[in-house]
Amino acid sequence: MKAYKSLTKEELKALCEELEKAYIDVKGKGLNLNMARGKPSKEQLNLSMDMLNIYNPSVDPVTPTGVDTRNYGELTGIAEARELMAGMIGVPASNVIVFGNASLPIMYDTVARSYMFGVNGQTPWCKLDEVKFLCPVPGYDRHFAITEQFGVKMIPIPLLADGPDMDMVREYVEKDDTVKGIWCVPKYANPTGITYSDKVVKAMAALKPAAKDFRIFWDNAYAVHDLYEDKKDELLDILSECKMAGNENMVYEFCSTSKISFAGAGISAMATSAENLDWVKKTMTVQTIGYDKMNQYRHVLYFKNADGIKAHMAKHAAILRPKFDNVLKCFDEQLGELDIATWTKPNGGYFISFNAMDGCAKEIVAKCKEAGVVLTGAGATYPYGKDPKDSNIRIAPSFPSAEEMAQAAEVFVLCVKLVTAKKLYENM
Amino acid sequence: MKAYKSLTKEELKALCEELEKAYIDVKGKGLNLNMARGKPSKEQLNLSMDMLNIYNPSVDPVTPTGVDTRNYGELTGIAEARELMAGMIGVPASNVIVFGNASLPIMYDTVARSYMFGVNGQTPWCKLDEVKFLCPVPGYDRHFAITEQFGVKMIPIPLLADGPDMDMVREYVEKDDTVKGIWCVPKYANPTGITYSDKVVKAMAALKPAAKDFRIFWDNAYAVHDLYEDKKDELLDILSECKMAGNENMVYEFCSTSKISFAGAGISAMATSAENLDWVKKTMTVQTIGYDKMNQYRHVLYFKNADGIKAHMAKHAAILRPKFDNVLKCFDEQLGELDIATWTKPNGGYFISFNAMDGCAKEIVAKCKEAGVVLTGAGATYPYGKDPKDSNIRIAPSFPSAEEMAQAAEVFVLCVKLVTAKKLYENM
Repeated sequence: MKAYKSLTKEELKALCEELEKAYIDVKGKGLNLNMARGKPSKEQLNLSMDMLNIYNPSVDPVTPTGVDTRNYGELTGIAEARELMAGMIGVPASNVIVFGNASLPIMYDTVARSYMFGVNGQTPWCKLDEVKFLCPVPGYDRHFAITEQFGVKMIPIPLLADGPDMDMVREYVEKDDTVKGIWCVPKYANPTGITYSDKVVKAMAALKPAAKDFRIFWDNAYAVHDLYEDKKDELLDILSECKMAGNENMVYEFCSTSKISFAGAGISAMATSAENLDWVKKTMTVQTIGYDKMNQYRHVLYFKNADGIKAHMAKHAAILRPKFDNVLKCFDEQLGELDIATWTKPNGGYFISFNAMDGCAKEIVAKCKEAGVVLTGAGATYPYGKDPKDSNIRIAPSFPSAEEMAQAAEVFVLCVKLVTAKKLYENM
Repeated sequence: MKAYKSLTKEELKALCEELEKAYIDVKGKGLNLNMARGKPSKEQLNLSMDMLNIYNPSVDPVTPTGVDTRNYGELTGIAEARELMAGMIGVPASNVIVFGNASLPIMYDTVARSYMFGVNGQTPWCKLDEVKFLCPVPGYDRHFAITEQFGVKMIPIPLLADGPDMDMVREYVEKDDTVKGIWCVPKYANPTGITYSDKVVKAMAALKPAAKDFRIFWDNAYAVHDLYEDKKDELLDILSECKMAGNENMVYEFCSTSKISFAGAGISAMATSAENLDWVKKTMTVQTIGYDKMNQYRHVLYFKNADGIKAHMAKHAAILRPKFDNVLKCFDEQLGELDIATWTKPNGGYFISFNAMDGCAKEIVAKCKEAGVVLTGAGATYPYGKDPKDSNIRIAPSFPSAEEMAQAAEVFVLCVKLVTAKKLYENM
C-alpha cells in the first residue's frame, strides 16, 4: 500500500476503477447496518435484565430513609439514589438531584430555565439580545440542537487532545458577557473519546467569566465507561476544582445510567453548588411533584453503590471492546499507510472520531448509506450541522454485533478510499 | 341543633365556651393527621404491586409492534401505551403522545413551550406584553402555580355545578386576544368534584377565540375515578366536540395513571389534534430522545386495556368510598342544620370542597393545624392563593385510613363550629 498522494494520475485512475468495482459488489450484498447512534446493543441491555426482578412485591417500598417510593414527593430524588449517583461521579450527595429517565431533558430544562427565568436571579436569557455558547468541536449533536432551538449563537472551539483550546475559551468567556455557557463532554468525549487533562479542568475551573450567569455544562456521560481494564482515563472532579478556585456556582454536572442500565429507562442526575440547587428547585417545584422514585429505587437495589456500577461496567466493556477493536484494526490495516485519514483510539465512551480528507465526509457518508451502512450525518458533530472542512465523521460501534461491525468497517473503509481517490484524481 | 344565625348573643357566648373547651380537649390528644394533598393511601398503592412482577426477565422486551423498550427512541411513546391511554379517555390513539411519570410536568412543558416558542408558529408568549389565563375557581393550586411562574395574569371564573360560567368564559375568550388559555379539570373537578355538563363541553368546544393561540388545558385527571358503581358521571369527549365545531386545534387533553398505578411512577399522556402534535414533537425532539418506555410497557402488560384499568379502579373506589362517606356523614350529622357551611358530595375524584362562612377559612385551617390536622392552605384553590371570600377549603380524604379520616373530620367540624360561632358572636 502506498500513500494516495504519491500515486500518479494513471495509478489513481486504475485505483478508482478497481474501488468502484468493489463498491458495486458491496452494494449488491444488500447490507443493512447502523453505526449512526450511540445505542447500546441487545447484548448490553440483557446485562441489566435482573434489575426487573429486584423491586418486587416482597420488597419494602419504603426506603431506609422513610420515603414511600410509590407515592408523591421527594422533589430532589430519594436519598439512596442521590448517594448512588454522587458516588458514581465522585461528588457529595448533598450536591446532587436525581431526576428521571435520561440526562438530555435535564440539560434541556437547565437551558430552558435560564432562558425563561434566568440564572440565580440574573436576567432571563429570553430578554437578552444575544446569548452565546462555546461549543468544543467536534462535539455532541444533541447539545448543539438544544442551544440552536433557543436561538443561542454557537461558537466552535477546537477540541484538542487534552480538552478544548483553553486560550480561546478564556478569551471568549472573560471578555464577552454574552457568552453564557460551554458544552463539555469531559471524559471519553463524544465523539473524539479524549478526556480533559488535569490542566484543562483546572483552567476551566479558574475562568473569570465576564457574565455572572456563565455556566459550564459538564456532561459527564461517560464517567464509568472505560473500555480497557489497563487503560482508564482519569478526570478531575470539576465541582471541587471550581470550589477551590472560588467559582462554586460556575458548573452544572450531568450524568445518567442510560448507558449503564437501560437507554431511556435509567435515572439521571445533576450535581452543582447549593446555591444553584436552590435556584433549580425554585422552578422545579412548580414543574413537577417529583420524578419516578420507583425506578430510582430499582437502580439503588440493583447496583447498591458506585462499586456495583463499576463492576457492571466491566461487563459492558467486554462486549464493546471487540467492536472497537474490529473497527480500529480494519482502519489500521487498510488505511494506516494511505495517509488519507486520521482517527481516534479512545480508552472509553461510545465513539470513534474519524477525520477524512477535507471535503470528503459528506460523500463518504452518502456512499455508505447507498451501500446499506448508516452513519451519523456528516457535519452533525458541528454547531448548525456545518463542518467547515467537511471532514469529521462519527463512528458509533456499539449497536451492531462485532461481526457486523467488522463488515460495516470494511464498507466504510472502501467508501473512504473510493471518495478520496476520486477526489484526488479529479483535483490532479 | 339550631342554625347558628338564629342564636341569641348569650347562647352564642355559651356555645363558644363549650366549643373552646372541646377544642382544648382535642388538642390534648396530640393528633397527627393529614388531609392536605390528594395522595393515594398505602392500601391503594398496594393494589398495583403485582405490576412489579409483570415486566420480568422472561418477558420479551420488544413490543408486538417491534420496539425494544430498553433502548433509545419512540419519541411519542410505544404504540401499545398510546392505545391504552387513548382507550382510557376515549380518543383515537393517533391523537396521543405518551410521556413520563406524571402529567403535571407535561402541562408545565406545554405552557413553557408556548412561552418560549409560541403555539403552532404564533408569537412566543415571552415576547408578548400580556398573557391571560382563565381559572375556574375553586380550582387546582398546581395549575395556578404554573401560570403564576410564567407571569401569566390569572382571571378567576366561577365554577358552577355544571362547569365554568360559560357566559363569562365566552366574554373573555372571544373579546380579548391576550386570553391564551383556560385551566379545566372537567371531570370530578379538583376540588369541587363536579363534572362539566354536555352543554358546557359543547359551549367550550364552540368558542370563537379572539386569539389564534388560545388553548383549553383539559386536565382529565379523574377520567376513571368513580367512587360509586351506581353514580358515575359521564363527560363528553372534548376532542371530537372541538373537531365537530371546527376547532380541532383548540384543546390539549392531559391524563395520567398517577392515581391508578403509582403516584409519580405512572405514565402520562396528552391527546390533541395532529397539527398540535406536530408542533409539540418539533420541540420535543430536541428535549428528549424519548420517555421511559419500560414503564410504559409495564403498564400495558399489567392493565392490558381500558377495561383492565376500569376493573382496577373499582378496587380503588372500594378503599376510597368509606373515607368520603365518613367525612360526609360527619358533616351531615354535625353541620347539617347549623346553616354555617356548604360542601360538595362528589361521585368521584379525590376531593370534597367545603365552603365555610365568609372570612372563616384561614382561621379554620389554622385551628385544625394547631390540633394536629393538616389541611390544604386556605386560599390555595384560588389564583395567587387569594380566596376573596376566605371561604373555600379543600378536603382530601384519600391518604388517612377511614378511621383516621372520621377522627380528622370530627376535629375539622369542631374547628368550623368554633371559628364560626366566635365570628358570629364578635360581629353581633
